[in-house]
Amino acid sequence: MFDLMRELATESRSKIVLLVADGLGGLPREPGGPTELEAAATPHLDGLVARNVCGLSIPVAPGITPGSGPGHLGLFGYDPRAYTIGRGVLEALGIDFDLGPDDVAARGNFCTVGAGGRITDRRAGRISSEFGRELVEKLGAVRIEGAEIFVRPVKDYRFVLVIRGPDLGDDIEDTDPGAADLPPKRPQGHDPASKRTAAILEAFIRQAAEILKDRDPANMITLRGIAKRPPIPQFEEVYRMRAGAIAVYPMYRGLARLVGMTILQPGADLADQVDALRRHWDDADFFFVHYKYTDAAGEDGDFDRKVACIEELDAKIPAIVDLKPDVLIVTGDHSTPSALRSHSWHPVPVLLAARTCRPDAETTFGERACLRGGLGQIEAKYLLPLALAHAGRLAKFGA
Amino acid sequence: MFDLMRELATESRSKIVLLVADGLGGLPREPGGPTELEAAATPHLDGLVARNVCGLSIPVAPGITPGSGPGHLGLFGYDPRAYTIGRGVLEALGIDFDLGPDDVAARGNFCTVGAGGRITDRRAGRISSEFGRELVEKLGAVRIEGAEIFVRPVKDYRFVLVIRGPDLGDDIEDTDPGAADLPPKRPQGHDPASKRTAAILEAFIRQAAEILKDRDPANMITLRGIAKRPPIPQFEEVYRMRAGAIAVYPMYRGLARLVGMTILQPGADLADQVDALRRHWDDADFFFVHYKYTDAAGEDGDFDRKVACIEELDAKIPAIVDLKPDVLIVTGDHSTPSALRSHSWHPVPVLLAARTCRPDAETTFGERACLRGGLGQIEAKYLLPLALAHAGRLAKFGA
Repeated sequence: MFDLMRELATESRSKIVLLVADGLGGLPREPGGPTELEAAATPHLDGLVARNVCGLSIPVAPGITPGSGPGHLGLFGYDPRAYTIGRGVLEALGIDFDLGPDDVAARGNFCTVGAGGRITDRRAGRISSEFGRELVEKLGAVRIEGAEIFVRPVKDYRFVLVIRGPDLGDDIEDTDPGAADLPPKRPQGHDPASKRTAAILEAFIRQAAEILKDRDPANMITLRGIAKRPPIPQFEEVYRMRAGAIAVYPMYRGLARLVGMTILQPGADLADQVDALRRHWDDADFFFVHYKYTDAAGEDGDFDRKVACIEELDAKIPAIVDLKPDVLIVTGDHSTPSALRSHSWHPVPVLLAARTCRPDAETTFGERACLRGGLGQIEAKYLLPLALAHAGRLAKFGA
Repeated sequence: MFDLMRELATESRSKIVLLVADGLGGLPREPGGPTELEAAATPHLDGLVARNVCGLSIPVAPGITPGSGPGHLGLFGYDPRAYTIGRGVLEALGIDFDLGPDDVAARGNFCTVGAGGRITDRRAGRISSEFGRELVEKLGAVRIEGAEIFVRPVKDYRFVLVIRGPDLGDDIEDTDPGAADLPPKRPQGHDPASKRTAAILEAFIRQAAEILKDRDPANMITLRGIAKRPPIPQFEEVYRMRAGAIAVYPMYRGLARLVGMTILQPGADLADQVDALRRHWDDADFFFVHYKYTDAAGEDGDFDRKVACIEELDAKIPAIVDLKPDVLIVTGDHSTPSALRSHSWHPVPVLLAARTCRPDAETTFGERACLRGGLGQIEAKYLLPLALAHAGRLAKFGA
């Protein structure tokens, strides 16, 4: 599909807005009842559906529950199965670390090891973020020849380790043994570059253990998801659009940066994000606006709060519509039904508004209406080509 | 899918008719209104839907607007992304030129060059077809050692050039610089065979320039879409059916010939085509009948004429049904909404009639009904396997 996009994408002055309500899709609280989206009063979203087209987006494939990485890559038009983002990379993106293309990132955990070197607590008694930050600062003293080392706190017992240097590899196994009562494993590399990188990691671990030895319960570390940024075709090169991201949370800014979007402004809340959209209207052709709280409420199992979050989103729709985007897509990166308190595999409601829509018969934005909508059930990765078509940004294929 | 077809296709006496109403799919003229197909009175097509099954066909992929080539390849069961037909080949097919498998075809334009050799008019002032024919005749005098040359008029300032000879290549760039005020480019080949072929083209251009030098405003030529026929698996070999085409316009006969169909009869109009279908009923197992005027009306932006064309098509349905085909498919190769005056990416209504249909609840042939139809939204390339199944022409897969 990328080759096709590269071949067909044309310059245009048209504007596309992709509004992602994280974890938008849901489930009924009781049998036969409405989902969160169906329970919410969404007059503006309903109006968009009535005049345009809706459907269901399949993030990866039927039955596959995506993390935030694959969920967003799909919405950005990438096949999420073709580009995998390592846990270490995602963790680095999540703290706004500006990861270079050759950096190797790992997610670190502080842990507790007993006298025999076996792990007694994989999370170091869930130490406070404050204590975690203090320890990370100490680890900043580690020096290893031939590589630059960055250690950054995340939260509680979690940190990010980034190695920067020439010819690093990332085919390296986790040092976390996956269960307590086992000693941390040695980082093991599977090709020459990864073996060299594993040796650097081993030196880091040795020095870290020395620094931490009296820091009970955080007297050791483990490393997981050791990975480089995947080589991802860049958004502008593929789609010929200047793309800008407006996301409050760093991980989503990081995902946007990974595909080459410009971070226009983080935004403090949704009102602020819509303001940013207005201010930056001339700075990009494609805008990714990320709204986190639908997912957070779903993860907390709070049906009513997810409903309230959706209603808050709905209230901002007129301000976006007022900007007159040529194409507006509202969807989620995956479902997060509050009944499940987690991401799920269920298809995600999507609406597409454009002058060139072939309307369906639906008049409300909700899972049942979307099931009958004109977009059908469509893989998320096709939404962006569709948006380009409606924005007049794709030439005819073949004569 | 081809390997599967080759494995499973069996001989049978059953008959399949694929009736293609070019550019069938449409859009409402005003918000909430009917599309062209929905506005048309189509009692016979409606009756077929009521007793059988309907759906929407996706020509290539969501968002992709196909040209006639990819649109028809999809309907013939080919993945349109896997087989691309160069512009020169399509242009040659469009004038019924019997292109050999090793011929290289190019679309030619007469153009005007000024004193410095720069193009001042890429279309030579849109000279008349008559003048174009006269010039093409003069170009027929060009002789080049080691290759046969065919020059044929198309329309106005357009012609087709075909080179026939051993070991020709077609990885050659256009000589049309794409804009005025630039000189024509030299044909540049990218592999040994293409370099040799480019040298032949260059010799042709040199002689042509000499012949045309006093023929203002058509004193030069450019060549585009230099291409050979793609190597396409032949219809009969893949599907084990004798296939026949009945198409008024040469391009569609050419596309049919490209996949190995027999041209049964061009036909003068739809009535004549249906007569031809009747007369040739024993000469093939699969019949491709092409109806052009729905697309032409859409391209002209004429909603009412497209409606009238659809009604004309509907009136001929009983005569086709009377022949008792085992499977009848009515669809389009793409949508051509009169509101857009061009091909579009919107899915195309399709109906499939066969004794073995599992009926859906729909009773009319139109975009909204097809959205709810039993075929769902299906990639065009799967329609032919489905037709074979309903025609009893596919064995069970696996034990």
